[in-house]
Amino acid sequence: MRIENIELKPSERIDDLQRNGYGIIQDPDRFCFGMDAVLLSGYAGVKKGGRALDLGCGNGIIPILLEAKTEGAYFAGLEIQPESADMARRSVIMNELTDRVEIFEGDIKRVRDHFSPATFDTVTSNPPYMVSRHGLKNPGDAKAIARHEILCTLDDVTAAAADMLKPGGHFYMVHRPTRLEEIILSLKAAGLTLKRMRMVYPFADREPNMVLLDSTRGGNSGMRVDRPLVIYKERGVYTDEIYEVYGY
Amino acid sequence: MRIENIELKPSERIDDLQRNGYGIIQDPDRFCFGMDAVLLSGYAGVKKGGRALDLGCGNGIIPILLEAKTEGAYFAGLEIQPESADMARRSVIMNELTDRVEIFEGDIKRVRDHFSPATFDTVTSNPPYMVSRHGLKNPGDAKAIARHEILCTLDDVTAAAADMLKPGGHFYMVHRPTRLEEIILSLKAAGLTLKRMRMVYPFADREPNMVLLDSTRGGNSGMRVDRPLVIYKERGVYTDEIYEVYGY
Repeated sequence: MRIENIELKPSERIDDLQRNGYGIIQDPDRFCFGMDAVLLSGYAGVKKGGRALDLGCGNGIIPILLEAKTEGAYFAGLEIQPESADMARRSVIMNELTDRVEIFEGDIKRVRDHFSPATFDTVTSNPPYMVSRHGLKNPGDAKAIARHEILCTLDDVTAAAADMLKPGGHFYMVHRPTRLEEIILSLKAAGLTLKRMRMVYPFADREPNMVLLDSTRGGNSGMRVDRPLVIYKERGVYTDEIYEVYGY
Repeated sequence: MRIENIELKPSERIDDLQRNGYGIIQDPDRFCFGMDAVLLSGYAGVKKGGRALDLGCGNGIIPILLEAKTEGAYFAGLEIQPESADMARRSVIMNELTDRVEIFEGDIKRVRDHFSPATFDTVTSNPPYMVSRHGLKNPGDAKAIARHEILCTLDDVTAAAADMLKPGGHFYMVHRPTRLEEIILSLKAAGLTLKRMRMVYPFADREPNMVLLDSTRGGNSGMRVDRPLVIYKERGVYTDEIYEVYGY
């Protein structure tokens, strides 16, 4: 990465992504990417020469990781918060990826303002997990917007994904198992068919706290559930698979 | 159990259920209960004094195990195949359970021929797992009827369960993970909300081959996924949890 032309705000830092020498600009006062984004980037496939779109890309972590991990040709990210979109753009510049990764500032609900329908092979999203029951209290609260369905709902995300996918294209999402029923109903309502799913268990004997989902635009019912993904071998020690997905 | 008044056909045998001294009549030429039925009987709850109905009860394994494991007051089983229903009735007599366990011969699609709607606290089912694409080839093939959706579909089972449940009652089912999307859509269409789910993995690092599901009639969305249930610690050696559910 080339950091000489990158301006950092006082609260920002650059983290090493352990992939291709890439870094990412993060602001702990706003929202730092979590293991969910990393696991999603390992679960999602982008075919050789394919086009990928990440809905709600935050600081750009998923487009940048997918560029590093796949043979896709083009990676777009859509982000509604101007400060996050700006941070993502500076990370793209820093990693010298401007010819393949593009960040758009905009609303998932108006995805056609930026892209034509049915033009992506892969769509990804690490959306807000929690239902917002009280609306937006503090519009500037970046963490709340990333975590709660304040500016977009699950249905908004699945509808935008279905709209942007070519027939047969894949939509990959990470979410909470507590919302699995709603997710499957929402995918179906959008015209997406769940084809594969992986439960992520923090420990081998604990309830899962994440689920990775692979759905396609169209397709017949009938799916696979993958072997369990376990995060910790013991307290503080990742399993081999997690070390691998992080690239250590 | 009292076996002195029980008549066994030449191909039948009595297996020990390791619970309350109960036995079960089985016919290996027809269909013997599997681990799925045992796991379902461990997953399903029947409240104290409650009424439970098993849809497609086969040789009666689930009503008999639920009688042994729960504090429910009444356990009904509905079975369409006369030979299986007869076998189940003889097992009920053998275990001296005729005052609490009742077997009905009939069709899940005509469940109201035998029971009034909204009269059960718990409904269970270990239904045929496989879609039948070719109809019934040999109507006498008990194994095919138990395994394939020849005489009833998934939608028939969920509709009957929803019809028989009191509001707030629970429907417990065991099925294949490959059909999870269809199951959730079918439950929803019947008016049932998935509240809890457990993946059953044959080994800790393998794809699951069963899923246990707990849904309620009515209720808000939002569910739990349980910790994984693993069958084998190593080849040929059950995990402690499996030994426990089998009562060894």
